[in-house]
Amino acid sequence: MVKKSLITGGAGFIGSHLAKCLLDAGHEVTVLDNLFTGTKANIYQLLDNPRFTFMLHDVTQPFWGQFDEIYNLACPASPIHYQRNPVETIKTSFLGMMNVLELALKTKAKVFHTSTSEIYGDPFVHPQPESYWGNVNTIGIRSCYDEGKRAAETLCSDYVREYGLDVRMIRIFNTYGPHMHPQDGRVISNFIMQALHNRNITLFGDGTQTRSFQYVDDLIRAVRLFMELPHSRVKEFFKDHGMSVPVLNVGNPGEYTIRELAEETLRQIPESKSQLVYEPLPKDDPKRRKPDISLAGELLGWTPDVPLQTGLARTIEYFRSI
Amino acid sequence: MVKKSLITGGAGFIGSHLAKCLLDAGHEVTVLDNLFTGTKANIYQLLDNPRFTFMLHDVTQPFWGQFDEIYNLACPASPIHYQRNPVETIKTSFLGMMNVLELALKTKAKVFHTSTSEIYGDPFVHPQPESYWGNVNTIGIRSCYDEGKRAAETLCSDYVREYGLDVRMIRIFNTYGPHMHPQDGRVISNFIMQALHNRNITLFGDGTQTRSFQYVDDLIRAVRLFMELPHSRVKEFFKDHGMSVPVLNVGNPGEYTIRELAEETLRQIPESKSQLVYEPLPKDDPKRRKPDISLAGELLGWTPDVPLQTGLARTIEYFRSI
Repeated sequence: MVKKSLITGGAGFIGSHLAKCLLDAGHEVTVLDNLFTGTKANIYQLLDNPRFTFMLHDVTQPFWGQFDEIYNLACPASPIHYQRNPVETIKTSFLGMMNVLELALKTKAKVFHTSTSEIYGDPFVHPQPESYWGNVNTIGIRSCYDEGKRAAETLCSDYVREYGLDVRMIRIFNTYGPHMHPQDGRVISNFIMQALHNRNITLFGDGTQTRSFQYVDDLIRAVRLFMELPHSRVKEFFKDHGMSVPVLNVGNPGEYTIRELAEETLRQIPESKSQLVYEPLPKDDPKRRKPDISLAGELLGWTPDVPLQTGLARTIEYFRSI
Repeated sequence: MVKKSLITGGAGFIGSHLAKCLLDAGHEVTVLDNLFTGTKANIYQLLDNPRFTFMLHDVTQPFWGQFDEIYNLACPASPIHYQRNPVETIKTSFLGMMNVLELALKTKAKVFHTSTSEIYGDPFVHPQPESYWGNVNTIGIRSCYDEGKRAAETLCSDYVREYGLDVRMIRIFNTYGPHMHPQDGRVISNFIMQALHNRNITLFGDGTQTRSFQYVDDLIRAVRLFMELPHSRVKEFFKDHGMSVPVLNVGNPGEYTIRELAEETLRQIPESKSQLVYEPLPKDDPKRRKPDISLAGELLGWTPDVPLQTGLARTIEYFRSI
């Protein structure tokens, strides 16, 4: 029987890749999106597929539908977007999760939730394993996202423990690729846009802070592998690891300094006249984050395999095309 | 003009003390409570006051009323209660806060929110100043309370920054006194009940973990002092301290080991035949917490002044009476 999948936030960067991937695998795919940061352009090529449906809706309002699996990706994820309306951001994260979990409970759907490395905040432990509790400010300007995502994890965990719901969570680390929002203010899109438009490339701080960058295809592969596992296998694996809830880090542990990224971007856009310039670090900017992906490796046999050079080339190609 | 005050959770332990105090100060007081952990007995003596109204309602559902100030105290606060239905606990914390803030915004009410030392989790910093971010597990069995309260702080902060709402938060540390729930499973009520019923007194771990214990009258005094300050003074004070949001620790920094508390309880109940017995620490039990109350001292000229011996005597008297 054809699997019916719902993707909240499916017109966004990662959601649109997932939608395409699930369609390619033969699923019926419904994308629910309020188009606040997602765009029709991201799913334009899927619209004429008879197994594809677009549903304009905001996850903070309840919704209904009979699906085998629900992928919860709805939430503005870049500071420039989520700080525009912080109250809406935390509502999206919390109420959206609540609505997804309630629907799943009533319809016996499997749930996939995209959490984030932001729940680790400005970590004291490096790299971060899933068991690390994080270091997050509750009352700062990034809190609407960080605490919203933390509370969403808690909701998932309680639905798992209280109702036995099949929920699988991935904490996504910094991910990039085609369909990124060119104005999302994040470092890769910033650098590419600046380089393509011959504007100076802005480094915050001294540019020596490191980041891990995961190409979107690696992430989607991990999501698929995780969701294909039988529920019993997932429960057993996490129980064996002393965790009552299925949550995996998924990211690329290869570290680059922000300055190296800027230099690689310029190398790949040789015609650019951009220069590197330095500005002060924004408040609450997390300084260093790198995933410990040993759990994902063990459970899924997964490691990221797209090198930064390759991923960056495909992303630059996308940015040139729009 | 008579001030109209709403207290969510006003039939609970702390809420009922606050209700009495505000009535004594001449306010019109409405208590909103679902009576899940609060009881009519706690407010029985207030019911015949013409300035008092009881409203049976659950904060997770929207409500309406024109008040000058709203005190948000609704949430089961002891593990034995809040773990009974974790999903309802986090909903109470988040949706209750949302409903309070939305009502305050529409009616221009001042908001007081009771946060908790639990947002610091199992702290690495000791004592905890307001600037400490905490160490909290997002997916553990206490998370429904801890993360719910953290997200409520974030909501408050965003309503302050986004809409200029007058919200004042206190992070309450361990508080005790008359009207505590005898079965709330917390250490003081446990010890008194065990001693009064000649059951053995249970110490978790080796009993050397320390706790700070604040008598409820000290807390209520701090709440009143904080709420009486002009908005301009509050804004200025926190701005001067580099904080965009008004939040104060309120607790008693005097530290006692759990064993000392057990011994003092037995000393005050000399007829008890109870013995001390030891059991393993529960999962995720925070080990040590002590408030840094210098900010509250500076802003309110407040320090706690009821010694443990006195407070314990009044609490034992209350437990004997019920």
